[in-house]
Amino acid sequence: MTDPDEFLTRLSAALPAPALREVAPHYLAEPRGRWQGRALAVVVPGSAEEAAIAVRLASEASVPVIPYGGGTGLVGGQLAEGGAAPLLISLERMTRIREVYPDENVMIVEAGAILSDVHDAAEKVQRLFPLSIAAKGSARIGGLLATNAGGVNVLRYGNARDLCLGLEAVMPSGDIWHGLKRLRKDNTGYDLRNLLIGSEGTLGLITAATLKLAPRPAGEGTALMVVHGPGAALRLLSMARDHMGEGVSAFELMHREGLNFLVETMPQVRQPWPEPPEWFVLIHVGLARGLDPAGALEALFEAALDEGLVSDGMIAQSEAQRSEFWNIRETIPEANRHIGAICSHDVSLPLGAVADFVAAAPGALARIGQFRINCFGHLGDGNLHYNVFPMPGGNRADHAGQREAVTACVHDLVHAMDGSVSAEHGIGRLKVADLERYGDPAKLSAMRAIKAALDPKGIMNPGAVLRAE
Amino acid sequence: MTDPDEFLTRLSAALPAPALREVAPHYLAEPRGRWQGRALAVVVPGSAEEAAIAVRLASEASVPVIPYGGGTGLVGGQLAEGGAAPLLISLERMTRIREVYPDENVMIVEAGAILSDVHDAAEKVQRLFPLSIAAKGSARIGGLLATNAGGVNVLRYGNARDLCLGLEAVMPSGDIWHGLKRLRKDNTGYDLRNLLIGSEGTLGLITAATLKLAPRPAGEGTALMVVHGPGAALRLLSMARDHMGEGVSAFELMHREGLNFLVETMPQVRQPWPEPPEWFVLIHVGLARGLDPAGALEALFEAALDEGLVSDGMIAQSEAQRSEFWNIRETIPEANRHIGAICSHDVSLPLGAVADFVAAAPGALARIGQFRINCFGHLGDGNLHYNVFPMPGGNRADHAGQREAVTACVHDLVHAMDGSVSAEHGIGRLKVADLERYGDPAKLSAMRAIKAALDPKGIMNPGAVLRAE
Repeated sequence: MTDPDEFLTRLSAALPAPALREVAPHYLAEPRGRWQGRALAVVVPGSAEEAAIAVRLASEASVPVIPYGGGTGLVGGQLAEGGAAPLLISLERMTRIREVYPDENVMIVEAGAILSDVHDAAEKVQRLFPLSIAAKGSARIGGLLATNAGGVNVLRYGNARDLCLGLEAVMPSGDIWHGLKRLRKDNTGYDLRNLLIGSEGTLGLITAATLKLAPRPAGEGTALMVVHGPGAALRLLSMARDHMGEGVSAFELMHREGLNFLVETMPQVRQPWPEPPEWFVLIHVGLARGLDPAGALEALFEAALDEGLVSDGMIAQSEAQRSEFWNIRETIPEANRHIGAICSHDVSLPLGAVADFVAAAPGALARIGQFRINCFGHLGDGNLHYNVFPMPGGNRADHAGQREAVTACVHDLVHAMDGSVSAEHGIGRLKVADLERYGDPAKLSAMRAIKAALDPKGIMNPGAVLRAE
Repeated sequence: MTDPDEFLTRLSAALPAPALREVAPHYLAEPRGRWQGRALAVVVPGSAEEAAIAVRLASEASVPVIPYGGGTGLVGGQLAEGGAAPLLISLERMTRIREVYPDENVMIVEAGAILSDVHDAAEKVQRLFPLSIAAKGSARIGGLLATNAGGVNVLRYGNARDLCLGLEAVMPSGDIWHGLKRLRKDNTGYDLRNLLIGSEGTLGLITAATLKLAPRPAGEGTALMVVHGPGAALRLLSMARDHMGEGVSAFELMHREGLNFLVETMPQVRQPWPEPPEWFVLIHVGLARGLDPAGALEALFEAALDEGLVSDGMIAQSEAQRSEFWNIRETIPEANRHIGAICSHDVSLPLGAVADFVAAAPGALARIGQFRINCFGHLGDGNLHYNVFPMPGGNRADHAGQREAVTACVHDLVHAMDGSVSAEHGIGRLKVADLERYGDPAKLSAMRAIKAALDPKGIMNPGAVLRAE
């Protein structure tokens, strides 16, 4: 490795002044405050070419590179505590919407564009960019693609990878891959796009993307329905799809504990029911011209009532009420942070195994200790956020010694049921050992071979996804 | 390389007798009769384990392996004329539907399952497996995934890769990757699934897949509409999506020449109009409960007539009429074969460039010679089959000397318009030079590195996609 000072001298000689930035503390922190990162310097390129210069120099000097988006990741992919101090390349200056093609349902954006700005740009041309997550006000497109973000609309529109037609990226060598195609069909060689998407910055640095837009549904509707449990919720989902086909955009499960946490820590959030029900779902539909979303939700509720799947429900009668329903779902993660989880799990299960998992997990955890569980998530995708908290009055720090056992208990159960221990947050640095433990050996071996082939010096986000050599 | 006889001896000692088959001539032919393949032997494994034994022995002996599906590929990916005689591994005995989960919209099938059998199995549980191509009666799931097949429903449901949740595959080492997940969200490491999908058997052998099913639309409708040209057709598509959102399942463009070819070679196919119009589209919609597909198509036609986009149209009034409309679209490739193309092109363009391409290409080709052009395809995906034929009475053989120039002319134009020279058929052996000529250098270099990393001996389908070392 080249001497860091010499590397920095070369870097500042090769890049224009605005592309170099002080290592401000916020680059080294992450949302849950678990890790404290380090950095040799921060580069904020104004173009793919400037990013390529930085990567090439880092490669020549064997300096690690961490691609940096909005910093909202929850698994430590955006910072490194150990190893040689890395160069952070933050995309925050590359925020342009480069081109919009409303008739093609296509938009080309730079990797630093913030998700909510992309939403706005799509809305301006009467289109929808469907990817939506709680951190939409700060998450950037490059990071969302690098981590293959999920969120609330996956049921209908897919994950981040399903919403991307092409990429521009700096490869670990410093070469730029110009892959900003706007094609729906393109079978010319290996799928490098999907390989970079979800690789969490370990195989390259995304600098721009071609995004798929969707038509805006003619009418939307939102309902809350009380269900008898996750199994009934899944039968309700099946019924909703029989009624409305792909019109079901979101199907979110929530538990009483989430409402309790809101009462305890965010009393300003209006409670939907005087007595919190044990399980309830938020259903969001977007329907075509000629259909009445509120009427369709009403018909669904009636049919579900007849089948004994639901016991109570309310259908939003205004935009304000719709926001209120969504606000409950979206503030639950914040209430969780106020309470302070011992550990959080982002798991997915085959739909048919969700109810069994929810039934089995509390008993398994009770063998470790006494906990409160807030289980909620994107039920339509089989994706549960299964978060474990101290009993009332307790403190997460008191349970530090149980953390590993709790996570192993949850993940073992998920794995035994053919689920995934990282549904949408990725591996980052938090789950490297989980991947080694639960991952398929042939897949892991292929991943290591690919990493070594594309990044022989191991400079791209070392220690994320795969253990650094 | 081991002596072939010794390799065959080891192979027959390691595999049960039913897994070995004679090298029948049909394994060495392909649909357009351009190439004649060769083979050392044919293995027809009964399980992934037997396939793995064959691949491992081939790897040890450095014998090339060609994974063999339905043999319907159009770019020579399924046979090799030169090089060492390969071992063909045909999936024809692995045709089981292993598991069906209607409530999850999921089905697990072996790679040898024929597409139309998968359609039937989905229909049996009131579901839809949306992938559909002309060769559905013989194409097998493994080959469809290995080539990322497209077809007529991509507009709504995506390509083969979008319909696959997981794979079981034999890696070039002979290790089996057990990746038959049925999860909608799974961010645990690199996307090996999408890397194998579309790699045309050069990175591994798919033995089974988890497929995504879709709800069956409550009602379907089909129409033929005469349009003023490709530009008007695209505005009609845009209007159709404004009216029906994702309800538009197929949007196929056809040209008068296709109807002429049918008259000439397949007079039994009933013509939709007494005088063939220059351009027309087939629109297929599948709508949710409560909507009337024929009524919606009628309303679309009226609106398009007002805008001057269409001049005539007919909406299928019965299942029989719907089949008749589709039959026209589906017999055009057969009529093309009867006429005999000088060369065929499977290209895609950004939607906004389609009309410009269709306008510019005939003039460019006229500088080479006089031809008939049958341009048709999946307009909604920007995917045109742009096939060039001799003038009436002429013979394709007389144009053999022009073939290269014609293809270069078409492909250069497509490339200049940011299109793709292989939309859905893949690279195979036919387009290796095209990929080298038009492919992005950074992507090609990454592809070569990945191939060398996963298949260091280069045994998997050598010469397909990438030139054999």
